[in-house]
Amino acid sequence: MAETARRPDRRYGNRPTMKDVAARAGVGLKTVSRVVNGEPGVTPDTERRVREAIDALGFRRNDSARVLRKGRTATVGLVLEDLADPFYGPLSRAVEEVARAHGALLINGSSAEDPEREQELALALCARRVDGLIVIPAGDDHRYLEPEMRAGVATVFVDRPAGRIEADAVLSDSFGGARDGVAHLVAQGHRRIGFVGDRPRIHTAAERLRGYRAAMEDAGLPVDDAWVSLGPTDPERVRGAVEEMLAAPEPVTALFAGNNRVTVTAVRTLAGRPRPVALVGFDDIELADLLGITVIAQDAAALGRTAAERLFRRLDGADEPPARTVLGTTLIPRGSGETPPPA
Amino acid sequence: MAETARRPDRRYGNRPTMKDVAARAGVGLKTVSRVVNGEPGVTPDTERRVREAIDALGFRRNDSARVLRKGRTATVGLVLEDLADPFYGPLSRAVEEVARAHGALLINGSSAEDPEREQELALALCARRVDGLIVIPAGDDHRYLEPEMRAGVATVFVDRPAGRIEADAVLSDSFGGARDGVAHLVAQGHRRIGFVGDRPRIHTAAERLRGYRAAMEDAGLPVDDAWVSLGPTDPERVRGAVEEMLAAPEPVTALFAGNNRVTVTAVRTLAGRPRPVALVGFDDIELADLLGITVIAQDAAALGRTAAERLFRRLDGADEPPARTVLGTTLIPRGSGETPPPA
Repeated sequence: MAETARRPDRRYGNRPTMKDVAARAGVGLKTVSRVVNGEPGVTPDTERRVREAIDALGFRRNDSARVLRKGRTATVGLVLEDLADPFYGPLSRAVEEVARAHGALLINGSSAEDPEREQELALALCARRVDGLIVIPAGDDHRYLEPEMRAGVATVFVDRPAGRIEADAVLSDSFGGARDGVAHLVAQGHRRIGFVGDRPRIHTAAERLRGYRAAMEDAGLPVDDAWVSLGPTDPERVRGAVEEMLAAPEPVTALFAGNNRVTVTAVRTLAGRPRPVALVGFDDIELADLLGITVIAQDAAALGRTAAERLFRRLDGADEPPARTVLGTTLIPRGSGETPPPA
Repeated sequence: MAETARRPDRRYGNRPTMKDVAARAGVGLKTVSRVVNGEPGVTPDTERRVREAIDALGFRRNDSARVLRKGRTATVGLVLEDLADPFYGPLSRAVEEVARAHGALLINGSSAEDPEREQELALALCARRVDGLIVIPAGDDHRYLEPEMRAGVATVFVDRPAGRIEADAVLSDSFGGARDGVAHLVAQGHRRIGFVGDRPRIHTAAERLRGYRAAMEDAGLPVDDAWVSLGPTDPERVRGAVEEMLAAPEPVTALFAGNNRVTVTAVRTLAGRPRPVALVGFDDIELADLLGITVIAQDAAALGRTAAERLFRRLDGADEPPARTVLGTTLIPRGSGETPPPA
């Protein structure tokens, strides 16, 4: 599945070009290029007129394109959200492979899930003159990046969309994946299904919760407030949430885990229970095959690759409106999600 | 266990200091500082003498220390070896936490196990004026970093030592860990024990092989050439190596896996076998507890933390000879390593 939302009302990279400078100064493009690059062959009077046009228009030379054209090593920055989350490993590696295929270096940094840190890091990478940025955002307001994007830093968001600006985004279908996973549990006969997810301000967490609610509604099943638990995904919080749902007078018989961190703790918590509880997790995890864990798998490498390819199309001069690409997910049944409710 | 090797024959950071400049110019330290930082209060004649001393000595202001002192955001670069190897997740995160505690930003890049790529990346980070570098090396010749280190870029190697230069290194005890793991298999009664590891040019792989051989020798056991397989750790190669050892006329009854990538494939390969084969793996892996996999655990977070703390001591001005710190490993018995050989 791939959906592309086009927003024609606002153009990407809508900044003055050398052509605009040439027109205003009444000179040829080559003359502007000579002035900008400090090459000889321009009279002082012409140079003055070009400089005045540059100042009047607020023209800034696009160093990114220049660097790429001149064959110097281009550099792409990747702002990660959590260095220790294994989901980002294949994503980062895919970005790196595309960058390498374009002869570019990749440098990463992590926001450690802190919006201020994300901003500081993204701007620090821009100050170190990266040619493009791929951002897994922690925050939901990216207006701070607009001046950089106008100045020519190509920017693509991945895993989560940008907030309050128009920008390219490559996402997994969190809503559809969660809906499919919960519908799969419903199809096994479960009626009381719990949802344990990340903090609701995170776009993917909110979308997966929406998918859970949609599947329950599609099946005509009510959702008890006690069956939904959102918050940090550290083991203590998740374990507590799972145990609470299982200790209720009418306990859930199945769980949907909102991401890989939740799944790992849910599996550990359920391993010690006498009565089997069905489980489907969002995101595949290593060795889940051997443990028989049913998951909704995202293709983390495809996310990274698609985002990086979009970035390099931007760097190669593609001037299209920002688009949102949504990649589909895959249900992988391995046993834990096919456990029926107790008779 | 922590061992510190000191090499007094060559000093780290042996470059001219402000003190040397002051002595040569015959002025006070404060006067040199004023000239270097462009502050007022120095006569033209004194300034000239200081500048001559600076030129004669080849003094370069240590921008790292200056940046840290002036409270501007310092930046530390981390050169990783493989973005998708989960071992480096906690290591990177620990480095990031120490960097943050020092108010510094961390930017990463990956060599993807390619020595040329490592060099290109490390120098690109230096060109972008990182204050310090932490390197998980892919290559075994780091002389290319000497000019940067002399110019004041503090550098610490982690997981594997530097090659052909003297530099700080923080390592796990690969030799001792592998020896302990193999001795544990010997203690269960195994006599034919296989070793599947990474390419021998990798320092940790060579050390773990050495540990395996030492444990076998300690037990008076011969090592058949067919029991040792070194090479890339992709699933196809590892699966083939394991199957070959098990198909021999006198098959191995136990395996030691040289790293986490090998362990994962070994577990998958052994899962389909009718006869149990004992297994101990170097490196802990997520969910190994639920699968009952016995491992020699390294403390990846402690490696990262120790390396980062050493780096910040350097950035804070510590002028000590390079040291090698070796962190101990821990045997975690969970079942797979306690299987006895067939009667």
